[in-house]
Amino acid sequence: MTPAAGEALAAAEVIVGYQTYLDLIPEFLAGKEVIASQMMKEVDRCRKALDLAAEGKKVALVSGGDPGIYAMAGLVFEMAREQNASVDIEVIAGIAALNACAARLGAPLMHDFAAISLSDLLTPWEKIERRLEAAAAADFVVVIYNPKSKKRAEHIVKAREILLAHRDPETPVGIVTAATRENERIVLTTLAKMLESEIDMQTTIIVGNSMTFAWQGFMVTPRGYAAKYAL
Amino acid sequence: MTPAAGEALAAAEVIVGYQTYLDLIPEFLAGKEVIASQMMKEVDRCRKALDLAAEGKKVALVSGGDPGIYAMAGLVFEMAREQNASVDIEVIAGIAALNACAARLGAPLMHDFAAISLSDLLTPWEKIERRLEAAAAADFVVVIYNPKSKKRAEHIVKAREILLAHRDPETPVGIVTAATRENERIVLTTLAKMLESEIDMQTTIIVGNSMTFAWQGFMVTPRGYAAKYAL
Repeated sequence: MTPAAGEALAAAEVIVGYQTYLDLIPEFLAGKEVIASQMMKEVDRCRKALDLAAEGKKVALVSGGDPGIYAMAGLVFEMAREQNASVDIEVIAGIAALNACAARLGAPLMHDFAAISLSDLLTPWEKIERRLEAAAAADFVVVIYNPKSKKRAEHIVKAREILLAHRDPETPVGIVTAATRENERIVLTTLAKMLESEIDMQTTIIVGNSMTFAWQGFMVTPRGYAAKYAL
Repeated sequence: MTPAAGEALAAAEVIVGYQTYLDLIPEFLAGKEVIASQMMKEVDRCRKALDLAAEGKKVALVSGGDPGIYAMAGLVFEMAREQNASVDIEVIAGIAALNACAARLGAPLMHDFAAISLSDLLTPWEKIERRLEAAAAADFVVVIYNPKSKKRAEHIVKAREILLAHRDPETPVGIVTAATRENERIVLTTLAKMLESEIDMQTTIIVGNSMTFAWQGFMVTPRGYAAKYAL
């Protein structure tokens, strides 16, 4: 958490968030009105936060990772627009899963990359496939969000097939689950073998581009210095 | 800066970095060996950091933004591999330009996006064009790093042409320069008009996808809630 996020929490009168995240920041909750909710109630959480803000309260809506990357910031704006709400909104950047997972793996995001969510809850699967195909063909490093849930075990299988049509089976793949948390798991594998590792809802997967290499347990996408300078 | 980065700096015996970044963190430099260098000497900085680490010193190599996204982490690994260096390396994630710029603009990165650098210093321009084309055609939000330098004024012109071949001229475009710094500039414009705004080496540009909208000065890419739920 950045100092800016801490300052926003300290300045807030009401803190709204998913219970699991609020449990991580007890020191910021003392003396505040706290509204906790369960998973999958994000629409309710946003509505509550906007209602309270419209009443004139300073509200902090807590998001895991970076609220601006596949997270809560967008829903707040979508809903505020629908309601024609008259509230001041500020988004405070955080460490997204892609930042945290990249750091734990080494340096896979040194070159152009595409972030793609495999969740078809709000996006047609055909569009997701088209993006996988485009990213694979143009040699982007690919960051896969939401690779699997109980209801969607086959999406990551299909995604791997699309990538394999354009990349060497030995392409490094990093599989990071619950980055920086107590139950963190990090696996450095290959496109050929990636499905042998455990993948779940807390997992983010980074697939290297044609230049990415594995070195001493790290995954590195070179920027191209070695080709230009004597290192 | 995150607490993890602060702890690493506090634990370091030597701090190596670009002078402009070190000037931002004087409180971490007291009592340390400090090795500052100028822009474009990143190879020298990495070499020095690795040499000192090989001597057994705890070295912090300071990077702006997130060292893992188009920044210093990759060069450290590229060089360590070339040297067959025997040092422990840890990357600490930070707030990259894409995180900071997205937050300042609203919520443009709520859906799949591609990050593309227009610098052809270490990458053939043909490869960059191919990625722009792929990202534009597959309706990715596009984050453009290094849009312009004194020597490369025409790349952003060409990038815009490629995007315009696939997107509405009214597609929202966010132009953020020096995000969160004193000289921060934020412009919310459109693909049609984006070249009318000042763009320089400190600028990051975010081009919306086909769903991105502008609302009260913010740029928002909907996740798709409005289509699924009554907001």
